[in-house]
Amino acid sequence: MTRNSSWLLKRYPTGMPGPDDFLLEDLPAPAAGPGELLVRTLWLSVDPYMRGRISPAKNYAAGLKIGDVMRGGGVGEVLQSESPGFKAGDIVQADDFGWQPMTVISGKTAMALDPAAAPVQASLGCLGMPGLTAYFSLLDVGSPKEGETVLISAASGAVGQIAGQIARIRKLDPVAVAGSDAKLAWCRSIGYRAGVNHRTAADLADAVAAACPQGVDVFIDNTAGPIHDAAMSSLNLFGRVVIVGTVALADRFGQPDLGLRHLRRILVTRARIQGFLLDDFVQSYVAARAQLLAWYRQGLLETREDISSGIDTAPHAFIRMLKGENFGKQLVKL
Amino acid sequence: MTRNSSWLLKRYPTGMPGPDDFLLEDLPAPAAGPGELLVRTLWLSVDPYMRGRISPAKNYAAGLKIGDVMRGGGVGEVLQSESPGFKAGDIVQADDFGWQPMTVISGKTAMALDPAAAPVQASLGCLGMPGLTAYFSLLDVGSPKEGETVLISAASGAVGQIAGQIARIRKLDPVAVAGSDAKLAWCRSIGYRAGVNHRTAADLADAVAAACPQGVDVFIDNTAGPIHDAAMSSLNLFGRVVIVGTVALADRFGQPDLGLRHLRRILVTRARIQGFLLDDFVQSYVAARAQLLAWYRQGLLETREDISSGIDTAPHAFIRMLKGENFGKQLVKL
Repeated sequence: MTRNSSWLLKRYPTGMPGPDDFLLEDLPAPAAGPGELLVRTLWLSVDPYMRGRISPAKNYAAGLKIGDVMRGGGVGEVLQSESPGFKAGDIVQADDFGWQPMTVISGKTAMALDPAAAPVQASLGCLGMPGLTAYFSLLDVGSPKEGETVLISAASGAVGQIAGQIARIRKLDPVAVAGSDAKLAWCRSIGYRAGVNHRTAADLADAVAAACPQGVDVFIDNTAGPIHDAAMSSLNLFGRVVIVGTVALADRFGQPDLGLRHLRRILVTRARIQGFLLDDFVQSYVAARAQLLAWYRQGLLETREDISSGIDTAPHAFIRMLKGENFGKQLVKL
Repeated sequence: MTRNSSWLLKRYPTGMPGPDDFLLEDLPAPAAGPGELLVRTLWLSVDPYMRGRISPAKNYAAGLKIGDVMRGGGVGEVLQSESPGFKAGDIVQADDFGWQPMTVISGKTAMALDPAAAPVQASLGCLGMPGLTAYFSLLDVGSPKEGETVLISAASGAVGQIAGQIARIRKLDPVAVAGSDAKLAWCRSIGYRAGVNHRTAADLADAVAAACPQGVDVFIDNTAGPIHDAAMSSLNLFGRVVIVGTVALADRFGQPDLGLRHLRRILVTRARIQGFLLDDFVQSYVAARAQLLAWYRQGLLETREDISSGIDTAPHAFIRMLKGENFGKQLVKL
């Protein structure tokens, strides 16, 4: 039997997930059924939405059951294809990779990659889910007009780093919120005009106001929590707030989030707050991917990855990403 | 000197306004300057937005200073016109009536009424600001589709009673939230399908869920507070929440509202929360007024007024409206 060290969900975390919520087990190598691909995992992606998947609470992402193999985005090499569109040796990206060296994915949602076009792991970052999320959340839901100030939380993360650069390309005025001065320095180097360190600011609302002297027109909210409150206090008339992620709530998932409410401010500013889910834009993926790839090949999109090595490190990589300890798109390389 | 008993703002209320926040003084009868009209007040309107006007907090309505005559919507008869479009004897409606028997208003924003078309005070209700608010908040911002469930708070109030009937006319499924069984019975009689009594429900979220078995597609939020929370817990995918008023916060104006936050739910449902201010729709007033008048004359819009008599009662009428003790559009008849 081939050794296939696989991470299982041991229990639903009640607060911030910890290493003990996961269990590493040697499973038999899986076999591809009709329409499936057996794949050797090269890269795994850990993303904030996966916090919702390991919760019994109703969510948009299909939930995992206790004892299931952890699943998420990945890139791998096809070892055996039972799906007509693929053959052994193909490099593919999909959203249903198990956290394991050999995994079986569906041929229906897998996408073949051209390793000559871009590093294959870019399909998990700027050319994949995070890049598309940045693209549609900013340009479609955010409806920005040239010159408007766009505040972006988790600004150096997988989504934020692309959103900030798209804002720069589209002649907007991007302002970063991130958790360290090093992250903010890098954000400035890729085109953010200013930045706020949410861990060291004496008063977060004052810091956002100082960084956004014209106020905030569009807020790409990847975090919720106190950063949301600070942004709301600088929101301009007819401001648009796109709720892309709630990673600041990762430690209290499924429990009520109590705090300041902003309905009066929403009324007075006639703000629009809108929830975002990438799946709703599937009809436009092809065009958006082509635009992102064009920008990437023109050198207009820089990317930064934070790479963790080996299947053993997958839970650690996931947890540090939830805590904001990563610097750039968090990946696991096998 | 003609006696002109006028209500002045004595101080900014810190919580729910009380009678002692206002002062009745005999002022000299005012005189109309160029472009102005001297008017004998027939009706005064008290509306939730006026809570914001007697606060030092930044707001959309121009604030009053301590000692100013209280101002709001009214209907009156022109005694003297210094504005070319009006003459003595005209019946006019405007938003800048003083709380006084004789008042001076601007000819620029006054509107002449045809007493034969509808009772003149309808210009303060179904054919005026509240009716237009119901019209645009539901049909424009709410973007309802036929058959969708529309939950409306303060459902028998000035805005709610019209919103519910427009929803009925447009073949939506209107559900009322109001503060007494008598109000809910009347709401059903004008076309609401079901209702929730927010003062007696054991669990407000459960009561909303039971009244909206298909969930809530559009929520016309006239109150904020716990009713907002209950509506959010039944909100459907792609639900629309229109923040029209925050009367439940009248007792804590300018102070933070603390409680449940719904960002996770907004994300998961891809809800859209949007602040509403009638002024933004001024370009479309003429068409909307014509539609409301047509429905009114066809007998499709019933109205209910709660009338307080005499200038002495103006603060009392205002305060009971803020507390939800009125039943129907609150007016003061002089």
